[in-house]
Amino acid sequence: MNTDYFDRFLPLIDAEMRKVLGNDFPFYAGHYGMLRYHMGWVDEAFRPAVVNSGKRIRPVLCLLACEAAGAPAERALPAAAALELLHNFSLIHDDIEDDSPTRRHRPTVWALWGRPQAINAGDAMFTLARRALYALAEHHASAVQMLNVFRNFDEACVRLTEGQYLDMSFEGRMDVTVDEYLSMIDGKTATLIGASLYIGALIGGAALETRSALAEFGRQLGLAFQIQDDILGIWGDEAVTGKSAASDILARKKSLPVVYALADTKVGDALRTLYARPIEDADVPAVLDLLADAGAQPYAASAAQSAHQHALEALDASGVLADDNPAGQALFALSESLLNRSS
Amino acid sequence: MNTDYFDRFLPLIDAEMRKVLGNDFPFYAGHYGMLRYHMGWVDEAFRPAVVNSGKRIRPVLCLLACEAAGAPAERALPAAAALELLHNFSLIHDDIEDDSPTRRHRPTVWALWGRPQAINAGDAMFTLARRALYALAEHHASAVQMLNVFRNFDEACVRLTEGQYLDMSFEGRMDVTVDEYLSMIDGKTATLIGASLYIGALIGGAALETRSALAEFGRQLGLAFQIQDDILGIWGDEAVTGKSAASDILARKKSLPVVYALADTKVGDALRTLYARPIEDADVPAVLDLLADAGAQPYAASAAQSAHQHALEALDASGVLADDNPAGQALFALSESLLNRSS
Repeated sequence: MNTDYFDRFLPLIDAEMRKVLGNDFPFYAGHYGMLRYHMGWVDEAFRPAVVNSGKRIRPVLCLLACEAAGAPAERALPAAAALELLHNFSLIHDDIEDDSPTRRHRPTVWALWGRPQAINAGDAMFTLARRALYALAEHHASAVQMLNVFRNFDEACVRLTEGQYLDMSFEGRMDVTVDEYLSMIDGKTATLIGASLYIGALIGGAALETRSALAEFGRQLGLAFQIQDDILGIWGDEAVTGKSAASDILARKKSLPVVYALADTKVGDALRTLYARPIEDADVPAVLDLLADAGAQPYAASAAQSAHQHALEALDASGVLADDNPAGQALFALSESLLNRSS
Repeated sequence: MNTDYFDRFLPLIDAEMRKVLGNDFPFYAGHYGMLRYHMGWVDEAFRPAVVNSGKRIRPVLCLLACEAAGAPAERALPAAAALELLHNFSLIHDDIEDDSPTRRHRPTVWALWGRPQAINAGDAMFTLARRALYALAEHHASAVQMLNVFRNFDEACVRLTEGQYLDMSFEGRMDVTVDEYLSMIDGKTATLIGASLYIGALIGGAALETRSALAEFGRQLGLAFQIQDDILGIWGDEAVTGKSAASDILARKKSLPVVYALADTKVGDALRTLYARPIEDADVPAVLDLLADAGAQPYAASAAQSAHQHALEALDASGVLADDNPAGQALFALSESLLNRSS
């Protein structure tokens, strides 16, 4: 896509988020310091730092949806900031739940300040994300519009916790169904991306049909992206993804290809036997053979393709793809760049 | 106080909370089951149970404030449920942060289902508390009124995480000031009690001055209650409190009497020396002597008394203490029963 939008939006999103996490009352320096560290703005001694801080996909989609609906993107900035902070809340807690000591090549919050403070830091990020939304009142939003934004935001939060529950519950299970898997990624990833578009379009003044079509575009985009991620986690090119090949196999992740193969009558039992104990490098070829026998890669590729197709249909139905709507065109270009990747 | 209010309110609060946690979609049975377990409604196999489930102080104060403001208490039920669920979110995460294996004589959520799921269960309780508020729309609340409720609720959430941060940060410190201590209990306890009254009064249609006075009543009530708790944690009668005498000394808790004595020029150094390593039963008399030398008990008693006095002044200023306002009278009676206790 045209990177002008990123160049224009990212500093605005950053500034809006810094306002929300800007409390500098001395008693709470350590508290807000942890949050700013997680965002990549300071180092672990709370000195200013510049580090890679994530792709900011959700807020950019939100701003594009607002602009595609016909209003200045700036009007949706408080919501864009809220969505990115919410995503970062989930990362802080995910890192504790997954016992991950590093994120983006730096120690995670819990690794530096311990789990108790990190749990509370995540709670703070969660509630500050919500607080970011009140600045919509300074951008011409009515009370009814704001309540509608809150409602969508809060429903996405509920789905986020449901998806996270499912994801963690899969670890100890060999009977995960494809439906459960799809509900998991819908809650954990797709709903929030859908909400980002819905909320942006709502603030931009779009009619209900346009908002709903854009939400569906975002949801399907999220599903397609996540399923692609599952494919790359098993068959991705190590040199391109930066993760070790078959990393999801070694982690025994219940990703879509695995869930599909576990339900296969031919290979299911053999795969369950392998997945019942830790998987070593030497086991990987056997797992790959079983996945191949089940046709797990073409199945997953077709599921990703189908979600991709549904995303484009919904985007088209939203009516923002007109030639005179550059933000709508940018939504199309961004979704294509997200889905045509090899890493 | 007249217990009729509790008899009338508790079943209503309970029913409202059960609606919020009532998701029975099979995929999420384990997720919502954990939340219902924490609330005391089911046992660990998710079979119906009846267990002691807390005093429900916050929702009762909220409903009384609504009724004292002149509207039916039922109108504030969604907010009452939200406040109690929010309190319970904080308990689920506190139990993980404090590594507490039991609460109310049952295993805590993390002790049964592990820390990762318990962190996420707390997040779910947090977001479902917020979701409970939307039912206000079914009780004649306008969008502006609802936004005002949200705002107070969210500010209380921010203060809750700030207070919790301070509380945990005190553990490793010997230089905690009385001001920091007061900010900690203000965030961790008092602000949410104040918000319970503010929100109830707001829904009841009270003018800003009445709401603010009731919020201050609640805040001071919370401060007085917490300082009393600190006094009982050191000098309480074991037979009455049910906790071992001097339990807060053995836990080296930085409660108000201790913070005060640590800052005392006469005994501070000696107390710091004792608190620098784990405290055994045999050390308790020496700590008690130092606290006595610093005058820590009369100091804390006077701080509690002062907050109690401020609470009553604010309640009086709110104007709800008229003879023809039984709910206002009940607020007075409830605060007296909370503050005239020995356990």
